[in-house]
Amino acid sequence: MDININDIDTVRLNDAGDAIEIIDQTLLPERIEVLSLADQHDIWHAINLLQVRGAPAIGITAGFALYLAAREIGGEMMCDSPDHVIKESFFKKLAEAKDYLNSSRPTAVNLSWALNRVEKVAKDRGDDGRKCDCIKIKEIIELMKKEALDIYNEDIEVCRKIGEYALTLVKKGDGLITHCNAGKLATVRFGTATSVMYLGKEMGYDFKVYCDETRPLLQGARLTAFELASSGMDVTLLCDNMSASLMKSGRINAAFVGCDRVAANGDTANKIGTSMLALAAKRNNVPFYVCAPTSTIDMSTPSGKDIVIEQRGGDEVTSMWYKHPMAPKGINVYNPSFDVTEADLITGIITEKGIIKAPFEKGLEALF
Amino acid sequence: MDININDIDTVRLNDAGDAIEIIDQTLLPERIEVLSLADQHDIWHAINLLQVRGAPAIGITAGFALYLAAREIGGEMMCDSPDHVIKESFFKKLAEAKDYLNSSRPTAVNLSWALNRVEKVAKDRGDDGRKCDCIKIKEIIELMKKEALDIYNEDIEVCRKIGEYALTLVKKGDGLITHCNAGKLATVRFGTATSVMYLGKEMGYDFKVYCDETRPLLQGARLTAFELASSGMDVTLLCDNMSASLMKSGRINAAFVGCDRVAANGDTANKIGTSMLALAAKRNNVPFYVCAPTSTIDMSTPSGKDIVIEQRGGDEVTSMWYKHPMAPKGINVYNPSFDVTEADLITGIITEKGIIKAPFEKGLEALF
Repeated sequence: MDININDIDTVRLNDAGDAIEIIDQTLLPERIEVLSLADQHDIWHAINLLQVRGAPAIGITAGFALYLAAREIGGEMMCDSPDHVIKESFFKKLAEAKDYLNSSRPTAVNLSWALNRVEKVAKDRGDDGRKCDCIKIKEIIELMKKEALDIYNEDIEVCRKIGEYALTLVKKGDGLITHCNAGKLATVRFGTATSVMYLGKEMGYDFKVYCDETRPLLQGARLTAFELASSGMDVTLLCDNMSASLMKSGRINAAFVGCDRVAANGDTANKIGTSMLALAAKRNNVPFYVCAPTSTIDMSTPSGKDIVIEQRGGDEVTSMWYKHPMAPKGINVYNPSFDVTEADLITGIITEKGIIKAPFEKGLEALF
Repeated sequence: MDININDIDTVRLNDAGDAIEIIDQTLLPERIEVLSLADQHDIWHAINLLQVRGAPAIGITAGFALYLAAREIGGEMMCDSPDHVIKESFFKKLAEAKDYLNSSRPTAVNLSWALNRVEKVAKDRGDDGRKCDCIKIKEIIELMKKEALDIYNEDIEVCRKIGEYALTLVKKGDGLITHCNAGKLATVRFGTATSVMYLGKEMGYDFKVYCDETRPLLQGARLTAFELASSGMDVTLLCDNMSASLMKSGRINAAFVGCDRVAANGDTANKIGTSMLALAAKRNNVPFYVCAPTSTIDMSTPSGKDIVIEQRGGDEVTSMWYKHPMAPKGINVYNPSFDVTEADLITGIITEKGIIKAPFEKGLEALF
């Protein structure tokens, strides 16, 4: 298809409000296909199979999915008044749908966060103190739709704000590096780490952008390099083990990465390899910035030591991308999905509410 | 075939002395095949196609190849006395063979070093001051064979010595990490960085060995993990971007790497990514050792800044190993083959003559 990936949202509700449209990320960079999904089972599979991925994008998808599930449930359960359904059965079925959608990915915090948020507006409206065991289904569904759309719109706004703050840290012609995909494909538009690049592009900053390929799953090569290059940016791909060499050559002025969780002391969990990029940056006096929507800052986690890192299967490393065997059969594999970049390696944490510099404990506390 | 890679030399002269046998490394780890090559064109292609690779192994192969070329040339050019050939034509043809073999790989220093060494013994014998324009070809060929075998035997001895010195730096049960392949497959036996592991294995050290996969060409996954696992060692593979996480987990007691060139101040050029492993080691207080035959120490290079790094083609990164496109078409690629690990990141340089610690300038100078 002749679509530019930058002209469409990663995930959105269609105009009729009866289905979501997502870019199928399993097909990138080979081809761009937009899936239209209405059924919760189809959406469950889309999340599970990584057709949509990236914590914010998953949350938005799940929010829309619960709204679509409510539409379906409501349609099945009319009571005798038109537009009314039995309260108890509706909420029971809604809770089932929520649990089901929540099981599509094990560790994405945004998934349950968005589901809870969209369920809550329904519950708040249902618990209206009236003795009637029916609820006005249309109203509830409209509220859920609005809440899901709010999550979607907030994401766009948060990413834009992060990009605006980040732009104050760079200058025209700078060389920027990023790791993994904290790009538009992980959000609706702009991305978190890439927002500075997209906004800078619009404003003629002429950045030279470098993307770590990000082994083992190659999100940097397949997704970030693809989406940035599609926007016409000057993009160069490198293997993860080349960033120190690149920085030493003087071509990099700043590093911007996303994050999965920021602890109260500033320690940041992000895709495996982030901490090595940070070490290379420190060694070469390159400022290293974490782009963090406040929703990813977890003040209940004191430090990186308290973050449990998911270990994944070895076949991601040994075979999944290769034509020929590239490792001996049955070899042991160490394959953590994330690592922790300690706060002293981080120059600043950029949120939608502003930039926090060391000491992070104080700055993060002031934010909340 | 039912061969164990550890039971055969990476390269050797056969018992009849009329051909070399090499392990075809382009087929690893899928299958082990030993090629028997006598013709200089076949050997040229074996080096050029990386069927034999690793600077020491290439040098040894080239040394044998020039001896085999002399045998062939000698056979063609009998003069009227039996066993005599015309001196001038012999050396002309020998020089042609040397230049030809030397063109098989662009940057391997050991290649020309070994060729010069084997040519020199012939020349020294040819320039015997006699006025006769013939030389005793059998004697010359025997001298060349002996020199080529000396290079082969010295390599085994150098690797063994490096391993013995390295063993004094570790203890039973240690976790060791290496990068790329400075293994037996880059030498005849033992390897440089892996020698400590093989000798330790024989002596019951029970090391846990970790291998960086080493993007883009995956020598760590395909060669090092393969050869070490074939010896029955406890081997674990990881992506290059995971070593900092692994070291932080406390599982690594020492890092051993090979080198392509050591400068007079200790700065060390080695496979791309080595400097990032060294940064991770420094951060986590893991001693970082460079295993360097004295032949790789170049006192005429003052520091790492004076080492020119080869840039290679982008397809190594974007496509050569993959079933599916894993990067957008036509993307720019940064693909340096090596990087420089600065001396302050290196704990010790292990040579066949002993271990040198900082300040390296003094220690290296004392060595020569």
